[in-house]
Amino acid sequence: MKTQTTSNGTFSELDKLSMANITAKSSRLWGFFIACYWVSIVTFALLWRAYKHVSWLRAEALKSPDVKPEQFAIVVRDIPHVPQGQTRKEQVDSYFRDIYPETFYRSMIVTDNKVVNKIWESLEKYTKKLARAEAVYAGSKTTAKPEGTRPTNKTGFLGLVGKKVDTIEYCNEKINELEARLESEQKVTLREKQQDAAVVFFSSRVVAASASQSLHAQMVDTWSVFDAPEPNQLIWPNLKIKYFQRELRQYLVYFIVALTIFFYMIPITFISALTTLDNLVKYLPFIKPIVNIKALKTVLEAYLPQLALIIFLALLPKLLLFLSKFEGIPTESHAVRAASGKYFYFTVLNVFIGVTIGGTLFKAFKRIREHPTLDEISSLLAESLPGNATFFLTYVALKFFIGYGLELSRIVPLIIYHLKRKYLCKTEAELKEAWRPGDLGYGTRVPGDMLIVTIVFCYSVIAPVIIPFGALYFGLGWLVLRNQALKVYVPTFESYGRMWPHIHNRILASLILYQITMFGYFGTQKFYYTPLVLPLPILSLVFGFVCAKKFYPAFQHPALEVAANTLKEVPNMELIFGAYIPPSLRSEKIDGDRVEDALSQASRTTPV
Amino acid sequence: MKTQTTSNGTFSELDKLSMANITAKSSRLWGFFIACYWVSIVTFALLWRAYKHVSWLRAEALKSPDVKPEQFAIVVRDIPHVPQGQTRKEQVDSYFRDIYPETFYRSMIVTDNKVVNKIWESLEKYTKKLARAEAVYAGSKTTAKPEGTRPTNKTGFLGLVGKKVDTIEYCNEKINELEARLESEQKVTLREKQQDAAVVFFSSRVVAASASQSLHAQMVDTWSVFDAPEPNQLIWPNLKIKYFQRELRQYLVYFIVALTIFFYMIPITFISALTTLDNLVKYLPFIKPIVNIKALKTVLEAYLPQLALIIFLALLPKLLLFLSKFEGIPTESHAVRAASGKYFYFTVLNVFIGVTIGGTLFKAFKRIREHPTLDEISSLLAESLPGNATFFLTYVALKFFIGYGLELSRIVPLIIYHLKRKYLCKTEAELKEAWRPGDLGYGTRVPGDMLIVTIVFCYSVIAPVIIPFGALYFGLGWLVLRNQALKVYVPTFESYGRMWPHIHNRILASLILYQITMFGYFGTQKFYYTPLVLPLPILSLVFGFVCAKKFYPAFQHPALEVAANTLKEVPNMELIFGAYIPPSLRSEKIDGDRVEDALSQASRTTPV
Repeated sequence: MKTQTTSNGTFSELDKLSMANITAKSSRLWGFFIACYWVSIVTFALLWRAYKHVSWLRAEALKSPDVKPEQFAIVVRDIPHVPQGQTRKEQVDSYFRDIYPETFYRSMIVTDNKVVNKIWESLEKYTKKLARAEAVYAGSKTTAKPEGTRPTNKTGFLGLVGKKVDTIEYCNEKINELEARLESEQKVTLREKQQDAAVVFFSSRVVAASASQSLHAQMVDTWSVFDAPEPNQLIWPNLKIKYFQRELRQYLVYFIVALTIFFYMIPITFISALTTLDNLVKYLPFIKPIVNIKALKTVLEAYLPQLALIIFLALLPKLLLFLSKFEGIPTESHAVRAASGKYFYFTVLNVFIGVTIGGTLFKAFKRIREHPTLDEISSLLAESLPGNATFFLTYVALKFFIGYGLELSRIVPLIIYHLKRKYLCKTEAELKEAWRPGDLGYGTRVPGDMLIVTIVFCYSVIAPVIIPFGALYFGLGWLVLRNQALKVYVPTFESYGRMWPHIHNRILASLILYQITMFGYFGTQKFYYTPLVLPLPILSLVFGFVCAKKFYPAFQHPALEVAANTLKEVPNMELIFGAYIPPSLRSEKIDGDRVEDALSQASRTTPV
Repeated sequence: MKTQTTSNGTFSELDKLSMANITAKSSRLWGFFIACYWVSIVTFALLWRAYKHVSWLRAEALKSPDVKPEQFAIVVRDIPHVPQGQTRKEQVDSYFRDIYPETFYRSMIVTDNKVVNKIWESLEKYTKKLARAEAVYAGSKTTAKPEGTRPTNKTGFLGLVGKKVDTIEYCNEKINELEARLESEQKVTLREKQQDAAVVFFSSRVVAASASQSLHAQMVDTWSVFDAPEPNQLIWPNLKIKYFQRELRQYLVYFIVALTIFFYMIPITFISALTTLDNLVKYLPFIKPIVNIKALKTVLEAYLPQLALIIFLALLPKLLLFLSKFEGIPTESHAVRAASGKYFYFTVLNVFIGVTIGGTLFKAFKRIREHPTLDEISSLLAESLPGNATFFLTYVALKFFIGYGLELSRIVPLIIYHLKRKYLCKTEAELKEAWRPGDLGYGTRVPGDMLIVTIVFCYSVIAPVIIPFGALYFGLGWLVLRNQALKVYVPTFESYGRMWPHIHNRILASLILYQITMFGYFGTQKFYYTPLVLPLPILSLVFGFVCAKKFYPAFQHPALEVAANTLKEVPNMELIFGAYIPPSLRSEKIDGDRVEDALSQASRTTPV
């Protein structure tokens, strides 16, 4: 093996500070070696405590004596064909009543809500528009013109073209029309667009918890169940996807994501090569006047080559979320977790390893293909690591000062809010909407923090000056984000700590990456006892395996001893059932003829 | 790659018959290629139908309206420490009553029965001995001596040394003594030797089925459950083994078995080298007179070198069963399945591949280590296969004629029975015992048949003359074993078809071995389209995966829709509970002070 070369030019001052005294075969490497074990063991201890704590938190949350609708329901998918002479509703009800004669309450058939949702959304839009127009009209009445000006708008594309109409009248008309359409569409949806999935309600928390983890049918690709999430978390269109199609989609998505992670630079390089300024002017001649401005031309020439990359990176989380939903994942929180996991691997592999090796993974592959040994792979990383210490130190510091500064001051949302208030918002509801802080954004925040974990791990022994920065980052992060989580952001869903096993595994993955890197580092330093590092990654895998065995199942399913806690009150099953009706299907009118539809209450027969 | 060489000398007539016309690059190889796909696809279709059928059989058996004790119980292991001021019994009862207030019946704490079993066994032994002595005494009374001779025996080792006593008196004495000891030991066992495992009974079949597959505790290594097997199947001493110890033991056993499979020849060669006739005479001089007999010497010289191997192979199934039980597997049927799986890999790897390559796997490893590619491995097999066609054909034919002949006539058990009847058995019970046919012996029978499956697969295209033999073997086997299973053997346990997924996977493994061999075969024949064979093993893996997803879970746990079938009668819970009391703990006397012991019925508190 070659001795350590500085692939990225000369070492900076900082690097010299931390590594100047270490030469190949130095006996001081024993210090590095012990530190390497120490970091791993401390990580294990802290991870173990954290997992235990989160598990306890989850148990406490699930034990809560408050009635939560999601604890009384399960979702069943892959319902087989309706037998002759039965409705879907009767089929589901009789199936579950046979198995749970005493605790089955009723079921709700999942329907295809595409059309009804669309109608409902435009109804909402016009209701808002009406409120806004009325506010504008009321505002215009005050001083000079006591009769005011009735607001008008054009009916065509984006309100730019078409006939000019009185907004208030137009909206009222539209609302009346849409209400009638909504009502008839609701009926059609509930009766004719039933899918082969259902939400099933039980009058007991323990039975629901037990049902959500039991095998119901002899053939596993029929009547498959999972525990219901909160009502607003259900991704209704995904519920109808069949068992093996879900599996197939999952592998397809994994394949696409793997391709994206490893080879994303190829299409981007290609697009960048095409979108030079000259090419753009050639194909889009109308931008010529803009390009001719000198200052703008300089900026464009600097950023245009990377434009495709910037757009790609900005859209990546959305793309990953889309892909995760495409997998057929039935709940929002799960989709966010899945997307966050994909983003983590992208960040670590491309940002961390990519920057370190000084190119994309594609290039690294080429080198590895020539000498395909574990040694080569890990020493490839280890050789390049020291050269990039300053870069990553700056990265952590920057994220720490600017990131948390922005986070705490919330200056960008504040500016946006004031701009909206000034120019856009006319009604109280609109102001409230503009003020809404949204949720914590796990999908991108967690992978970002995990990148810091990876960086701090990998430099913890080689350039320990990174540790205080890392400690500060997470220490301050705890204070800042705790405040933000408690007082600023509004969570859109509650998954009872299911994010933790996910984070735990990612931290372990970072730790293993660190251990392999250190193995390569000792190798390049010609440390005689390098093989003694090898037990560490094995230990990490065993640790991960033990944790997964001991803690994970309780995150997958609610444990029965937890669900068996007594409730504060007798659950109001009507309310629980009502919570799961999607807003577009809610109707105040009580219908006489709802016998056959997806929400009907079948007459309760006496249990056998 | 070399062209096909005949590693085992010249081809026999038969081989010439089947392969004479195929030369390298022959276009007739397309016929082989199509046959290769045809065999695979037919296998998939048949396996799918079989899995579906067995799944249906299992469902029907579990649906049965008869009350079966195992359908009303679950086994719980890894119970945490007893809290202060509670007995183990109260702990278990209150835990399950909280979760299942209406359907929990009662629990039975698992005890350490080692001592009590020993006493009970010697009690049984003396009871039998007494019956035998009385029969002998009665038999001796008849003609000349009307008063008869009272049988006597010696009390020492094997009845060879020690004081001579009257057997009937001696036995009566012993029985009285043991009965008293048994009673006091039963009390001690039930009160003081309680383990952290229990059998829990429910009054509903659905609840028991659901409970057996639900997560009970937040920490998964406490209160872990599985569905109870039949009472006589429970391996009591294994129930107390803790969660992570079980995992550890499992991996340890896998490791030992892998070592045994790959390197068993090393110790055996070593032992064989030591046990030459000369050596034996040297160390055991008293066998010299025997060795000097000429005929015997010839036989001994021929067989002694292989004696260690023969003994090893004869004991291997027992060793594997022991290892499987050592894993901590809690039921007999599961242990037999596990042992059978291990034996299968041993047979296929050593008998099939070993014979084919003409040595042990160890030798093959050497060659593979020199050229470690998939090509090399599969062509190693493919080159040697044709040379051994005759050997395996003879093997199948032999197993078919002699195996089924012996099976159907049961000549060996018949001889043994008559020998026993003549010289050993004196009482009715002993005669019955000698007549007992035992069970089907899955542990060795299934791997043996799987070896035939492997042989027929691997030669099906190269030497298709094996197919009629295979068809006859399994066709006749179906007739013979169906008869034997229905009318001869007495099953010792019923696992409701859980053996099938196991057999299914082994057949698939054989199929994949066949496909890889064919890949090597086409390679050695320089067939241009050889890579087109590669989709086959991938297809097999996907098929296995789909089957495992669709069918397997219903074999792991009882499906609820199956358990929900109505029963013929209201289950008698007293009887069900009683069935699980081990014979050594059964006692006719009703005790007043059984409040705190492992079997006591806790006073039923009203559910919360």
